[in-house]
Amino acid sequence: MTPGPSTTSRTRCPSTVKPVAGRAACSVSRVTALVTLADIRAAQQRIAGVAVRTPLLPAPWAPGDGELYVKPEMLQPIGAFKIRGAYNKIALLSPEERARGLVASSSGNHAQAVAYAARMFGAKATIVIPDTAPPHKVEATTSLGADVVLVPPAERDVVPVRLVEERGFVLVPPFDDPAIIAGQGTIGAEIGDDVPDVDLVLVPVSGGGLISGIATAVKVLCPDARVVGVEPELAGDAAESLRAGRRTAWTPEQTHRTIADGLRTVSVGVAPWEHIRTYVDDIITVSEDQIRAAMRVLVVQGRLVTEPSGAATTAAYLYARDRLPEARVTVAVASGGNVDPALLADVLVGS
Amino acid sequence: MTPGPSTTSRTRCPSTVKPVAGRAACSVSRVTALVTLADIRAAQQRIAGVAVRTPLLPAPWAPGDGELYVKPEMLQPIGAFKIRGAYNKIALLSPEERARGLVASSSGNHAQAVAYAARMFGAKATIVIPDTAPPHKVEATTSLGADVVLVPPAERDVVPVRLVEERGFVLVPPFDDPAIIAGQGTIGAEIGDDVPDVDLVLVPVSGGGLISGIATAVKVLCPDARVVGVEPELAGDAAESLRAGRRTAWTPEQTHRTIADGLRTVSVGVAPWEHIRTYVDDIITVSEDQIRAAMRVLVVQGRLVTEPSGAATTAAYLYARDRLPEARVTVAVASGGNVDPALLADVLVGS
Repeated sequence: MTPGPSTTSRTRCPSTVKPVAGRAACSVSRVTALVTLADIRAAQQRIAGVAVRTPLLPAPWAPGDGELYVKPEMLQPIGAFKIRGAYNKIALLSPEERARGLVASSSGNHAQAVAYAARMFGAKATIVIPDTAPPHKVEATTSLGADVVLVPPAERDVVPVRLVEERGFVLVPPFDDPAIIAGQGTIGAEIGDDVPDVDLVLVPVSGGGLISGIATAVKVLCPDARVVGVEPELAGDAAESLRAGRRTAWTPEQTHRTIADGLRTVSVGVAPWEHIRTYVDDIITVSEDQIRAAMRVLVVQGRLVTEPSGAATTAAYLYARDRLPEARVTVAVASGGNVDPALLADVLVGS
Repeated sequence: MTPGPSTTSRTRCPSTVKPVAGRAACSVSRVTALVTLADIRAAQQRIAGVAVRTPLLPAPWAPGDGELYVKPEMLQPIGAFKIRGAYNKIALLSPEERARGLVASSSGNHAQAVAYAARMFGAKATIVIPDTAPPHKVEATTSLGADVVLVPPAERDVVPVRLVEERGFVLVPPFDDPAIIAGQGTIGAEIGDDVPDVDLVLVPVSGGGLISGIATAVKVLCPDARVVGVEPELAGDAAESLRAGRRTAWTPEQTHRTIADGLRTVSVGVAPWEHIRTYVDDIITVSEDQIRAAMRVLVVQGRLVTEPSGAATTAAYLYARDRLPEARVTVAVASGGNVDPALLADVLVGS
């Protein structure tokens, strides 16, 4: 395994964790120390009473002999898991940092998560949103009290940096940050606590913060469990990265073809990549039709509203079982439910 | 207050409970002893690991200064709260009784609840369903391993009795039974444990088993809380009963006008009526349009699929606040999510 191009420190070797087969997880130097279960347990304390401790929902409707449980993160106050990481990050800032104001770049669930968490701390949040985003996403963010700055899509990452430099704002990144990873990892801790005999945990992959945190917790709490990422075929950069053994990037033109608007990030983050190559057993892809079909199953059989990204893991369980490890107990993380009502209606009547 | 027509015993006076204003709850003889919190706590032990212990979901999208929490019972394995009562009832039977086989009359959620719970005990269940029920409801019941007997609607209550007499089956009634009431009451115990400072609990009313159990628990655990039932205007028999001070009945032709197919029972049961008149502060009604609008809000803002019956309480909170007691913290019990996908799609695009 080749070290990353700018490695600066050696990772701690997670002593209680089985390395993923074929990968010498602790033998190379790394960009950053990996997040630990202790970081995640501390995050659990911080987010208690803010994020919902979601139950594991049995899915007796799923075919086969195994048991499927859905982790319904669309039930969070902003409709997605992102509140866990954003709140943990903002809680870890000093009062002085929060008083300077926060900035984030997102047109999706991270925008609402930062706006929601900032409001709880009485902090001002500025969200940079591409001017191509649909008006209801802007409205959802402003309704939570955040300022919105609309920018051309090409400037969505440079404008926040400029606001940090010029206005003194503190950046809340969407995934490439240990506090964000630890916050999302609380899902993994809950899974480990609720079903310690879990065999397989399925997690959607975009920037990689979610699967990084979950895999960190699960691999310590349930050393025999496998953690497998799920991506759309049309945005399969992380699956490609894992196969190649190095972090690859797709183009926005490629990843924006998928209906799963939460999974269009063109590459996993630097810190997530370190966690993924250490802890994640595999990443598989599902088709657009499979995602739509799983959305319908989750509504009709599971009574859960998912956005396309949130249905990807259930799609993998239902339609790509032959590419998954054998498992008696599987958890599918359903990451969010912020879906255009017209799309949902189309999915309901269209299949 | 007039005693019921066939009173046979005196109720225990629930000493820790404040009587509902204007009603001398403990001064009259009753048909049956009321279910107690101890019965409900025992039911909690029985259903643990079978029914999901549903979280209270904050609803920051609800307008006004108060806090609304939704109790999402559509997340139960069969998509509705009914699993709580049915499982508790069947668990309380002797092995010999369960071996005789179970019978229930229902075309809805009770059918699936009995089928699901019976299967867990390895008991045979026979469900009597009106031959006018849609095929997917029959299919949902048979897929859980139950035998289905289709009968003309007029015979839906007499055929189960005949099966009890001729075949030795044990009847699992939908609401008029203390074990069923205690099982549904576990929702109230969970509410009392999770938000002891609750001011108002909104519960849909059909046969009355759900509100009976919930009110019993809430009035002990949170003596200052109000419990208010919600019915469709087109099936407002319980609201009328509470106003009249006696159990009244509507006709099936009347109650079948409502879209809320889970709330069409023509009269509350005998045992539920005793609990309602003792513990329930008020019952209000909502319109068909309000129910549909609340279904849409619950999908879009709450990411929850409700059947019309399950949206009635949220409709009351959103659109009939002027008829509810003042409250800082309100819980709306969303009872179920077994809805025709075409209806749900219509609700999504139609408003």
